[in-house]
Amino acid sequence: MRIDILTVVPDLLKSPFEASILKRSIEKGLVEVYTHNLRDYTTTKYKQVDDYQYGGGAGMVMMIEPIDKCISKLKSERDYDEIIYMTPDGETLNQSIANEFSLKENMIILCGHYKGVDQRVRDHFITREISIGDYVLSGGEMGALVFCDAIIRLIPGVLGNETSALTDSFQDNLLAPPIYTRPAKYKGWKVPEVLTSGNFGKIETWREEKALAHTKNRRPDLLEGEI
Amino acid sequence: MRIDILTVVPDLLKSPFEASILKRSIEKGLVEVYTHNLRDYTTTKYKQVDDYQYGGGAGMVMMIEPIDKCISKLKSERDYDEIIYMTPDGETLNQSIANEFSLKENMIILCGHYKGVDQRVRDHFITREISIGDYVLSGGEMGALVFCDAIIRLIPGVLGNETSALTDSFQDNLLAPPIYTRPAKYKGWKVPEVLTSGNFGKIETWREEKALAHTKNRRPDLLEGEI
Repeated sequence: MRIDILTVVPDLLKSPFEASILKRSIEKGLVEVYTHNLRDYTTTKYKQVDDYQYGGGAGMVMMIEPIDKCISKLKSERDYDEIIYMTPDGETLNQSIANEFSLKENMIILCGHYKGVDQRVRDHFITREISIGDYVLSGGEMGALVFCDAIIRLIPGVLGNETSALTDSFQDNLLAPPIYTRPAKYKGWKVPEVLTSGNFGKIETWREEKALAHTKNRRPDLLEGEI
Repeated sequence: MRIDILTVVPDLLKSPFEASILKRSIEKGLVEVYTHNLRDYTTTKYKQVDDYQYGGGAGMVMMIEPIDKCISKLKSERDYDEIIYMTPDGETLNQSIANEFSLKENMIILCGHYKGVDQRVRDHFITREISIGDYVLSGGEMGALVFCDAIIRLIPGVLGNETSALTDSFQDNLLAPPIYTRPAKYKGWKVPEVLTSGNFGKIETWREEKALAHTKNRRPDLLEGEI
């Protein structure tokens, strides 16, 4: 998988890709991630990437030209499966969308900043618009990081233990059951006895019951599709 | 506002807080953000922070002791409004939760990693559990970044133009209308005439209509509460 991220604040994206599973997936050669500074694609003297919005109003708007130039250059070098724009009014990311994108080969991710991008960018260049949730962030960079993390960890070989991702919350429309580790007793708080019983049939049943009860309690909406 | 983030991968959080509005808000003295490495609170020789889960199964679980020690130290120094755990099965973050948290004074954010934290941490130390969306990430750090960004940008003085945040998507249950900037014509793609008309009454009406139509089309669920 190759991901090209277009941004006006490339520094923001630096450390997350140099730590944790994102770093490991790059080192293992499973993913290539390139960050492109849109300021390198400006034609004006002051490397301007944004301007006031037509019709007035607070907040700057990202201009079409640098984005067009950067996307066109990348598209001339290879084919892309998707050109994604991170925006709060996009399709809301969920685990099934993450699963879908984890199978793609080449993707461009455009991070909006300031008030967003000129609408003509969305109309003419973007193939998918993704939101990571119903809240506004200072830019699309955090969204791009979340999106990359959600899909990259699903690529076989990225996680140390491949079965690990399959038992996560959402993969079966259930939240995960409670988990415990040593010590069995801490300040008087004990691990449920069943988990230390060694009876794996009982443990499995307990986990299923707990997962279902937890989901019913916290997120009954996840179960609706199932009934 | 003071935020203390507890993590096992502090490096991951570095650059985002050194760029963009997060950096500016810290420089302006509006926010203090401290990162705590849970490995500094271990008592074992190998600075162990995680262990196998009771009952078997893939994935490691974060141990209670280092978390307890770190939270206890912080709580001995000052009062905290909330001790937040970032987890996919928490309350789903939205703009109104972001608004609520932007008014808090001191917060601790615990980032889960691996399979998550020992359930006893959640039962005995955590006051709020927050999810940034229905997908699984490799750790709570990305969630913590998103959460911090969503609330910090709402603190008065953080954004250059204070009115900017109020016209964002979600603040009035509507998605934002399309925005445009110079040039008025690019490769034959024109800005809608109304926006260059100078008639601000007309512009306001056009924006309201577009915002409503866009919301009806993409996110009719946002309008349900309003009807």
